[in-house]
Amino acid sequence: MTKPLVLFDPWPRQRRLIFTDAMWARLGALARVVGPEDRKADPAEFDAQLGEAVALIGQTDLPAERLARMPRLRAVINVEGNFLQNVDYAACFARGVHVLGVGPVFSLPVAEAALGMAIDLARGITLADKRMREGGEEYGFKGNRDSFLLTGATIGLIGFGNLGRALLPMLRPFRPRLLIHDPWLPDGALRAEGAEPAALDTLLGEARVIFVLAGVTAENVGFLDRAKLSLIRRDAVFVLASRAAVVEFPALVELANAGAFRAATDVFPVEPVAKDDAVRRSALLLSPHRAGGIPEAMRLIGEMVVDDLELVLRGLPPVRLQPARPETVARFRSMPGRTYEKGVTL
Amino acid sequence: MTKPLVLFDPWPRQRRLIFTDAMWARLGALARVVGPEDRKADPAEFDAQLGEAVALIGQTDLPAERLARMPRLRAVINVEGNFLQNVDYAACFARGVHVLGVGPVFSLPVAEAALGMAIDLARGITLADKRMREGGEEYGFKGNRDSFLLTGATIGLIGFGNLGRALLPMLRPFRPRLLIHDPWLPDGALRAEGAEPAALDTLLGEARVIFVLAGVTAENVGFLDRAKLSLIRRDAVFVLASRAAVVEFPALVELANAGAFRAATDVFPVEPVAKDDAVRRSALLLSPHRAGGIPEAMRLIGEMVVDDLELVLRGLPPVRLQPARPETVARFRSMPGRTYEKGVTL
Amino acid sequence: MTKPLVLFDPWPRQRRLIFTDAMWARLGALARVVGPEDRKADPAEFDAQLGEAVALIGQTDLPAERLARMPRLRAVINVEGNFLQNVDYAACFARGVHVLGVGPVFSLPVAEAALGMAIDLARGITLADKRMREGGEEYGFKGNRDSFLLTGATIGLIGFGNLGRALLPMLRPFRPRLLIHDPWLPDGALRAEGAEPAALDTLLGEARVIFVLAGVTAENVGFLDRAKLSLIRRDAVFVLASRAAVVEFPALVELANAGAFRAATDVFPVEPVAKDDAVRRSALLLSPHRAGGIPEAMRLIGEMVVDDLELVLRGLPPVRLQPARPETVARFRSMPGRTYEKGVTL
Amino acid sequence: MTKPLVLFDPWPRQRRLIFTDAMWARLGALARVVGPEDRKADPAEFDAQLGEAVALIGQTDLPAERLARMPRLRAVINVEGNFLQNVDYAACFARGVHVLGVGPVFSLPVAEAALGMAIDLARGITLADKRMREGGEEYGFKGNRDSFLLTGATIGLIGFGNLGRALLPMLRPFRPRLLIHDPWLPDGALRAEGAEPAALDTLLGEARVIFVLAGVTAENVGFLDRAKLSLIRRDAVFVLASRAAVVEFPALVELANAGAFRAATDVFPVEPVAKDDAVRRSALLLSPHRAGGIPEAMRLIGEMVVDDLELVLRGLPPVRLQPARPETVARFRSMPGRTYEKGVTL
Repeated sequence: MTKPLVLFDPWPRQRRLIFTDAMWARLGALARVVGPEDRKADPAEFDAQLGEAVALIGQTDLPAERLARMPRLRAVINVEGNFLQNVDYAACFARGVHVLGVGPVFSLPVAEAALGMAIDLARGITLADKRMREGGEEYGFKGNRDSFLLTGATIGLIGFGNLGRALLPMLRPFRPRLLIHDPWLPDGALRAEGAEPAALDTLLGEARVIFVLAGVTAENVGFLDRAKLSLIRRDAVFVLASRAAVVEFPALVELANAGAFRAATDVFPVEPVAKDDAVRRSALLLSPHRAGGIPEAMRLIGEMVVDDLELVLRGLPPVRLQPARPETVARFRSMPGRTYEKGVTL
Repeated sequence: MTKPLVLFDPWPRQRRLIFTDAMWARLGALARVVGPEDRKADPAEFDAQLGEAVALIGQTDLPAERLARMPRLRAVINVEGNFLQNVDYAACFARGVHVLGVGPVFSLPVAEAALGMAIDLARGITLADKRMREGGEEYGFKGNRDSFLLTGATIGLIGFGNLGRALLPMLRPFRPRLLIHDPWLPDGALRAEGAEPAALDTLLGEARVIFVLAGVTAENVGFLDRAKLSLIRRDAVFVLASRAAVVEFPALVELANAGAFRAATDVFPVEPVAKDDAVRRSALLLSPHRAGGIPEAMRLIGEMVVDDLELVLRGLPPVRLQPARPETVARFRSMPGRTYEKGVTL
Repeated sequence: MTKPLVLFDPWPRQRRLIFTDAMWARLGALARVVGPEDRKADPAEFDAQLGEAVALIGQTDLPAERLARMPRLRAVINVEGNFLQNVDYAACFARGVHVLGVGPVFSLPVAEAALGMAIDLARGITLADKRMREGGEEYGFKGNRDSFLLTGATIGLIGFGNLGRALLPMLRPFRPRLLIHDPWLPDGALRAEGAEPAALDTLLGEARVIFVLAGVTAENVGFLDRAKLSLIRRDAVFVLASRAAVVEFPALVELANAGAFRAATDVFPVEPVAKDDAVRRSALLLSPHRAGGIPEAMRLIGEMVVDDLELVLRGLPPVRLQPARPETVARFRSMPGRTYEKGVTL
Repeated sequence: MTKPLVLFDPWPRQRRLIFTDAMWARLGALARVVGPEDRKADPAEFDAQLGEAVALIGQTDLPAERLARMPRLRAVINVEGNFLQNVDYAACFARGVHVLGVGPVFSLPVAEAALGMAIDLARGITLADKRMREGGEEYGFKGNRDSFLLTGATIGLIGFGNLGRALLPMLRPFRPRLLIHDPWLPDGALRAEGAEPAALDTLLGEARVIFVLAGVTAENVGFLDRAKLSLIRRDAVFVLASRAAVVEFPALVELANAGAFRAATDVFPVEPVAKDDAVRRSALLLSPHRAGGIPEAMRLIGEMVVDDLELVLRGLPPVRLQPARPETVARFRSMPGRTYEKGVTL
């Protein structure tokens, strides 16, 4: 029996980073895979295969007319990390084609990094290391006037999707009072997690530790503006772990520099950050978009893709990757200034 | 009815740092408290009160002859953090006098800081901040070649006392394979915690994340010597959170500088560290003995002291502070080079 | 502005059992609700409203021709507990109509009851009560020869959907070796939960505590047949918490009666069980389909329905109820012998 | 070198029940063990060995005069389960002899059984089984009017020693509001566990699930008297898992029979219970003192004894068994009516 045909166009991901040899072999046993491993495919090179293809692994444009030529298509698997606006998602949904993304692979790495950044801010880890290198350290209690425990603190999560769900279990041992703000989730869903649903202003004004985990949509660009950020307690720490565009970034830098609160960020309005950007000298704890893309996450992409493709080919629902949802897939926006050419991706 | 008399000599702790006003008032309601709040007491100034005193809160010398003059004594409460060799502990135990220490107040702060340092090393948080300030950062995957998850990792704890017991629940969400080495604990006690008892060499050779949490005793000075440290995996991270004297410190610095593994330390052989000490320019993540002494821990001292004193005066066993044990109290050694004059204490 | 129209046909559920007055009022504020609260609707009584209806709450037949007359329909919400084969689901999916079920409300109650039944069997709770009433009890160790701890035991879950996910956190404190068998889930998905994926035979042969949590589909009727059940350890306990049809029920009863293992069941091939059915005198711990339908679960139906309807009307994806999946909705089978007339439903 | 001598007098425990062959061999490698395995020792038969003995494993009377003849004694290990008043504990403490008990081995079994009994009462498991055997069962919701979830409930613990500490982690997945009443523990110690310290009346009046875990002392006999029990909510469940003597037992039976609340008990004022005792026909869920003494607990006795004896002989503090405390060891009372002759022990 002929194996089903799968189109492969993972760029800007490189095949070797996301598929171990073992996983690549497993995929090969499951399907005939055509397409380039280390460059962007020209959509035209798939023309002859469209009629046969049961799935696309990658980011090839799929407008309505191309989809119409793919009668056997059952899954479109984006491995880049964001749902781009280059696919006619409505047509996919109408036909029952699964539209899947790899968001879940980044949840654990981002959650662990966000926890690490929060402890860093609460305890001054990076700052103390710097001071000790400069010869100006203070020992013990004297160096700890602003330090506090996560244990027993009020912790606020802004956004409660994959990232929040990955972070939550890591926070439970600290037995926090847990506030969650997510306008897409009913209060009962949050209470079922042991959290208090909170209005944004309440969360900002009460939490000692704030994690920003919300994706950016057409509607929420800049919703954490200067006025909102000004509600944050002076003794709070603020960790921006999702997307820079949800924050009025210049206001964040300014407030952190002024000591209004302590802050860390893994994301920036434009990446790479300009060499002379003042954020490099700011009071923020700086992480150059490193929270998600660690080797284990990359390799998990391949595993999840093969797992779900196998299920789909068996006539079962996929369970590991994230299904796009008709209501929201068109709302998500890529990160402004994203420079795919450099392979610099989440 | 006259309130019982309590001697007070907390120096190098200052009263205001360890007793909130509310807790100080609670102590005052419980007992007449005599002694200085902000300087070391002269033992002689207690001479007239020895016959009445039911407890000492502090570090006054208590040799046998002085103890003999304290017939009503029921508790000796060290608030400094280490059991010093200035008390005739054997005489206390023979008389049923409680000997209590404040170690437990530092467990949570050290555990949180140790977790933060481990994530820092595993993800390069401090290093990436530094590089971004210098303009040499790498984004995303390129900057993450050595990053790894705590989730699913093999984690080793060397020493499993108060610190280990505080850290363990914070590690559970990562579902690690957990190795513990503690020569004072039977295997069954470790298995009951869901851990694998491990020989030191096994732990050092297998763990990806190593926490050193062992106190220093007469027997274990320098047990983590160059040979032992050389067993550590190249891709491991090593967090020294208890006492510098358990490690051959120069070997640790040298190995870290050579890239043998990544390491962080909160403690140093002599504190304060000399201005020209090369450790300041080493590859270690440096924390100037800040992991324990945060304001919340300091205030918890007062609460625990009053709680336990109240129990003792009611004829009940104390439950919050750490009881000294006859077998081990004489084994613990203070930190070499400890400079109490400067108030630099754990 | 006119409120949207919602058709209401919850029978065999009664409105008052699934909607508190407060939740009913909340639904009323959201939509015009038409249909009977306490009887089955005649499909014809909705004819005039089909053109306006944005949602159906209930189990009215929706064949293709009726769906075609409902151009504004956005959600079909089954409140009975099983997806019946009286809706043209394919047509719903093609149009992007949400098909939702209330399965999740029963997850926690069933999980708690299943845990209770497992402990009952492991410790002989019901049996010892009976013996004590009859005057034949044995005290202490003598009565405990077959008792064992869940702590540290090997626990197997057969099926890992809503029920398994609700039960898993309740099992974690026992630090079990956890085996899961679910042919719809890839190994990696189970490992991510800290479980070992297991073949059915392995699980049956090794687990000391077995929970059957699998739903019944066209393919898996009777998959736990006599041969499989014979693999179970003599010292094991077996809790059937999902559907009787997945088990060769007469073999289960026979083996339990023969002392092959201890067993409990919440479900039966035909319910109500015949007055003279021998299962009533069997060695099984008997629960007359009570694990799920407790008052809290019933009331949660209303809350989840209103929460999700509100989201759908706001143009957001529902998050609380369970979405039917095209691949599986047609596979599930109702419980044989189900007698809706009596309102006796899961 | 001669092995140290250990006296052995475990009766009413039998050696084979508490020491596996492997553990018995381990003990034999550690010490010369003298004394009977299966009967009570005559104290006189140890006379010749008193001078050599470093430890007693068992319950031999040790009045002051006998202790005075045991100069090398370092540990007295009670394996029966309660500290009896047949040892001069004060003399032991003054000499630094460890006085240890096996209470901890029963903590997990009692905790699991107590959880099982609580779920049984909350869901009517035993009752429904009985009704189904009699042909009077109700299915689904109809049989569940009084059923409720532990999840989210207010749960109260009366007494927070070994049992409470073992039970608490098993309750956390239910995310209860947790009330604890223990007059021997400061509020801060309870808050550190995530619980609310509660006055007894508050706990009784507010908790939906009540666990009685308090040991019986000279002071607290019958403290849960009729007036206190009358504070319990009508919809609450009450699990007596520690000692019958803390409750006014006839009032408990009467109130349970009257439907004042639902209750279970593992202990009785006199055991064995008289054949014609009306409690056998009462509304209580009855467990004939079976919660603790399961085979795994029995075998753990031997392991803990050998583990701690080994530590003591190495000059280290014991860590597994429970040390008697001078303040409380004389307060605990055996269970009235305890009949050791029959080997019926906790």
